[in-house]
Amino acid sequence: MARKSSLLKRTLASSCIILALYAIVNTFISSTATLKLDRSFPFSSANSVVVSDEFGSQDTDLLNTSGKFVSPVKIYLYDVPTRFTYGVIEHHGIARGGKSVAEVTALKYPGHQHMAEWFLFTDLLRPESERIGSAVVRVFDPKEADLFYAPFFASLSLIVNPIRPATSSGQQQQLVYSDEESQDAFMEWLEKQEYWKRNNGWDHVIIAQDPNALYRVIDRVKNSILLVSDFGRLRADQASLVKDVIVPYSHRINTYNGDIGVENRKTLLFFMGNRYRKEGGKIRDMLFNILEEEKDVTIKHGTQSRESRRAATHGMHTSKFCLNPAGDTPSACRLFDSVVSLCVPVIVSDSIELPFEDVIDYSKIAVFFDSVSAVRPGFLVSELRRISKERILEYQREMKEVKRYFEYSDSNGTVNEIWRQVSQKLPLIKLMINREKRIIHRDGDAPDCSCLCSNQTGISARL
Amino acid sequence: MARKSSLLKRTLASSCIILALYAIVNTFISSTATLKLDRSFPFSSANSVVVSDEFGSQDTDLLNTSGKFVSPVKIYLYDVPTRFTYGVIEHHGIARGGKSVAEVTALKYPGHQHMAEWFLFTDLLRPESERIGSAVVRVFDPKEADLFYAPFFASLSLIVNPIRPATSSGQQQQLVYSDEESQDAFMEWLEKQEYWKRNNGWDHVIIAQDPNALYRVIDRVKNSILLVSDFGRLRADQASLVKDVIVPYSHRINTYNGDIGVENRKTLLFFMGNRYRKEGGKIRDMLFNILEEEKDVTIKHGTQSRESRRAATHGMHTSKFCLNPAGDTPSACRLFDSVVSLCVPVIVSDSIELPFEDVIDYSKIAVFFDSVSAVRPGFLVSELRRISKERILEYQREMKEVKRYFEYSDSNGTVNEIWRQVSQKLPLIKLMINREKRIIHRDGDAPDCSCLCSNQTGISARL
Repeated sequence: MARKSSLLKRTLASSCIILALYAIVNTFISSTATLKLDRSFPFSSANSVVVSDEFGSQDTDLLNTSGKFVSPVKIYLYDVPTRFTYGVIEHHGIARGGKSVAEVTALKYPGHQHMAEWFLFTDLLRPESERIGSAVVRVFDPKEADLFYAPFFASLSLIVNPIRPATSSGQQQQLVYSDEESQDAFMEWLEKQEYWKRNNGWDHVIIAQDPNALYRVIDRVKNSILLVSDFGRLRADQASLVKDVIVPYSHRINTYNGDIGVENRKTLLFFMGNRYRKEGGKIRDMLFNILEEEKDVTIKHGTQSRESRRAATHGMHTSKFCLNPAGDTPSACRLFDSVVSLCVPVIVSDSIELPFEDVIDYSKIAVFFDSVSAVRPGFLVSELRRISKERILEYQREMKEVKRYFEYSDSNGTVNEIWRQVSQKLPLIKLMINREKRIIHRDGDAPDCSCLCSNQTGISARL
Repeated sequence: MARKSSLLKRTLASSCIILALYAIVNTFISSTATLKLDRSFPFSSANSVVVSDEFGSQDTDLLNTSGKFVSPVKIYLYDVPTRFTYGVIEHHGIARGGKSVAEVTALKYPGHQHMAEWFLFTDLLRPESERIGSAVVRVFDPKEADLFYAPFFASLSLIVNPIRPATSSGQQQQLVYSDEESQDAFMEWLEKQEYWKRNNGWDHVIIAQDPNALYRVIDRVKNSILLVSDFGRLRADQASLVKDVIVPYSHRINTYNGDIGVENRKTLLFFMGNRYRKEGGKIRDMLFNILEEEKDVTIKHGTQSRESRRAATHGMHTSKFCLNPAGDTPSACRLFDSVVSLCVPVIVSDSIELPFEDVIDYSKIAVFFDSVSAVRPGFLVSELRRISKERILEYQREMKEVKRYFEYSDSNGTVNEIWRQVSQKLPLIKLMINREKRIIHRDGDAPDCSCLCSNQTGISARL
């Protein structure tokens, strides 16, 4: 019995040691192998192979050493003079009767629809441990960087001077801010940077979200990956879907947090905004003419104000469809307001480009009409009436799925997605950089372009 | 004492259970979390965070759920009728006096310079466990696939009929093979496929390595990712750096396995090949004229044969520089022969495009001359003579670094790199597919293209 007990003890002890060793080894492997991929997924476990990559090498570009995983792209955040970042916020405040402050970095960026420059900048300032899931990691040595981010609050700079300047305080107009001057100063600063000169700006990321941002210098940054709202004011040789990234506007209307459904959405179609716009936006007036008298349709002229935002919120939260006509440029903030309101966007803007279209199938969340059909009396509304309740619920369900892509403050939202899009440009950027080093340039050559053409094989506008 | 012993036993047992539970849980996590990324790399371990992704979801597209890693791209290999693969090999044999065989899949693909179609096909046929490090995994259900590979030995098909047909055996000419017929039949078969029709071929991968391969039907596959040697015979709307992948020729000369060095390379510049070529290749005759009399230069007219291959091998292994002039098309197999021979390529081909240029900086392994300068008497040779021994060793060192990219049979070589290049196209392909679903097409529209232009800001041809 004593022997038995001793045997039991010993067996128990041995098992314990084996298990302990196993646990330790297992833990060790988990924490040092760095990247483990069970390649069997999504296949049967029979194929299971664990691959770990050689991360010890000096060359940190894993694209070279393995095709299976892509290492995070390394981005360098330029330490630009404060005048291009917080300084712009300060001027925005001063122009509205505020005072100069001692510590500008304590200033908060004012809310408006082109806030991506703020979110991206502050994202890169955060410690890596708070940047979970980002496709880019910040590096502090430019020699290590794949890409360079030169932060300039170009969209805010554009609106520093209010349409009606503050004249209440005694200091009126004594601090005049010039956006043009800031653009020039920014470019002058950038073009002096060693890493800008190295590859003619190809590996730089520049944000110009407002269609008018950087307008004076856009030709000098056209090699860079541009983050823009659309290509409305940009020529084909300045920006394209291939080189650049379409970023969403910051939605200005509160997210509708209710469930999907049409019961509380009595209005068929809702629009509130400026009736009179230039260029493609002329369609707005035409749409007003044919829609104003329609039953179940709310279409109102309104300009930006807190009041009208409240009215728009109510309208978008209680309508089935939200009209999104072209404005001065093809896109508008309203699209993202519609999506977060679960109000199915009705897009009438023939040359609109949409953000993140590799992962978002917009035909699942929006209805598209070509301009010619949209202004045929009765057509648009009768088409919308034909859409079943079930189909609307499907649109809404899909909007719920993708709306995080339009939430700048979601930790798994717009900011991460923008970086992912940027990181996907890297192979082509590297190719262009290497190619420029050896390409034969001859005077008078036609521009040397590589294109992706839609070939017009697609489906025509339809519901 | 009994109590103590019992306590010890109980403690031991509890510890054991805890450890066992820990081991089980740990193992469970390791094997189900599938993808684990220690994001601390390349940073200090203080930042270490283990991220595991939600793999339980139906949507297996990880691009949507995390920006940090990219899951392998899923590719579906079409089970095409044998006539498009092994059947072509059989016909190639028959046309050279061989016999029809019972089991065509036992046939071996004949060696030539456009063999990528064979290497890619057989790579996908291998079990996943042998495809370590590949950027694509084969799936057997087309519903799961991101991309579709339609294998047709189009380059071999082009050369099935020898220039002088075999007439020795009795069966002469009784089995006449028509490449044109095969191209038509392949397209007819492909265009019937459900998944081809679904996205107009955008998500398909088609190989046409020989510049004349698929020439009859290339317009019908132009939406697809094309794997080509160069764009010599392709229009800008058919193929581009953005959509397609430049694949290397299979080198036809043995790899030089010796060390870097110039001691056994007495010849300054070597060329052997056809003196008379069409189009851009007319430069060859001009180069012969100015180089024939130069000291230390070997430049010989020669056509393809085992004999001349032996002579070329010797020449390339004993020369410092190897001339690579344009041929009928801008690129040629010779470039890859030069690289594996550690003979510094001297490229005189103004519109050449080069494989894998995002990861290979060709200015580090080759010397580029524009055609105009290259034919100025004395210029080319005197420029080459100015290049120091140290510089040549640098070129050679770099060639050693990158030559695996040109070894089709290296398990970490050309095939993996081609798949990596293909997988990088996926985001743009998905974008184009989604965009086509909602884009407004109007009659008479100009082609809708997104381009990447070199902007002519690069460096002009130089050493």
